[in-house]
Amino acid sequence: MPDPPTPRVQVRRLPERASYDRDLINSILDEALICHVAFVHDGTPVAIPTIHARVGDTLYFHGSPASRMLRGMRSGEAISVNVTLLDGLVIARAAFHNSMNYRSVVLFGEPRIVEDPDEKWRALEAVTEHVLPGRWADSRPMTEKEMKGTLVAAVTIDEASAKVRSGGPGDDAADYELPIWAGVIPLELRPDDPITDPRQTVDAPPPPYVGEYRRP
Amino acid sequence: MPDPPTPRVQVRRLPERASYDRDLINSILDEALICHVAFVHDGTPVAIPTIHARVGDTLYFHGSPASRMLRGMRSGEAISVNVTLLDGLVIARAAFHNSMNYRSVVLFGEPRIVEDPDEKWRALEAVTEHVLPGRWADSRPMTEKEMKGTLVAAVTIDEASAKVRSGGPGDDAADYELPIWAGVIPLELRPDDPITDPRQTVDAPPPPYVGEYRRP
Repeated sequence: MPDPPTPRVQVRRLPERASYDRDLINSILDEALICHVAFVHDGTPVAIPTIHARVGDTLYFHGSPASRMLRGMRSGEAISVNVTLLDGLVIARAAFHNSMNYRSVVLFGEPRIVEDPDEKWRALEAVTEHVLPGRWADSRPMTEKEMKGTLVAAVTIDEASAKVRSGGPGDDAADYELPIWAGVIPLELRPDDPITDPRQTVDAPPPPYVGEYRRP
Repeated sequence: MPDPPTPRVQVRRLPERASYDRDLINSILDEALICHVAFVHDGTPVAIPTIHARVGDTLYFHGSPASRMLRGMRSGEAISVNVTLLDGLVIARAAFHNSMNYRSVVLFGEPRIVEDPDEKWRALEAVTEHVLPGRWADSRPMTEKEMKGTLVAAVTIDEASAKVRSGGPGDDAADYELPIWAGVIPLELRPDDPITDPRQTVDAPPPPYVGEYRRP
């Protein structure tokens, strides 16, 4: 198993749940629809949810140039990013041993603003495709004005750790004889049937990537 | 509609999505299984997912006394908390207008460590009941040693804002005639059938609060 790339990203609590395997980290980043970016604004730490997208070793963010989060990224000061997938409630016999099954990633980095038009275009394509694979080619493309009205920032994924819990509860040995049900309630972020825009006037049924939508 | 209680919690981006209504804020806090706490560790902002629970105007957190997040809360320095519920993918005709439906809360506060044994006990009951209502009474109760091995922190919910997006896409007027499907894919964190602990030896079927589990 790979070692932690830097001390600040080393998992210290429950290190047996940690992994520094890049494939695992990438799979968690790719499955999660949103991440939380932590940054300092006016001296106070803030965590803001936002959409991310991965291209190789780079994680992209986008938004309005007025966004506090993206303005903060201009400074190049370190940020961190957390991505969490909830997989289940772990219900132990003892309240103390209740837990959750999850897969999460913490990543540190110094963001940069993406100025190169080609990289910016590919980043915005990646954001659309991250959320809904297949959609970019069907969309009305970005205009030059929309490109100018969108800020894109990037961090390199070279300081990241994953933390994963799976499986059933871990109770104290004596508690297994208690007449209490214990186990796991699996959880999944699941899509429901698509709702066509009531303002739609053209005959365009939901494409397969909408009708059969699932996270990877 | 109530005004923002303080400037730092005022929603500046897309203020038409903002609300400072306490009932709405409470309903989002209560539905979300986890939150993200932002704090500064060794000069770097970090966002860490954790379970929260609300009792009246107080939000509680718990964990190991060794947790960096809870150790940070001992200092009493300001933290912020974000809670986000994803309700759907909003798929516009124009890539630029893609969005998500969500309900989120941002909260600022100066945490305190809960020392009073009664308050600590009630906070841990609230955490269990937040995740799985009905479970506390059925659980093997916390022991004194387990209580000592758990740190509980609290922030008062007096600086919080909600931000909500709902409904269909908002495309440019000219784009409504494009032959492109647009609409919403609703999303929900949904439970699957409970999995009984394979180490269970007693005859104890899943209780109704497990078999019929739904978020409020």
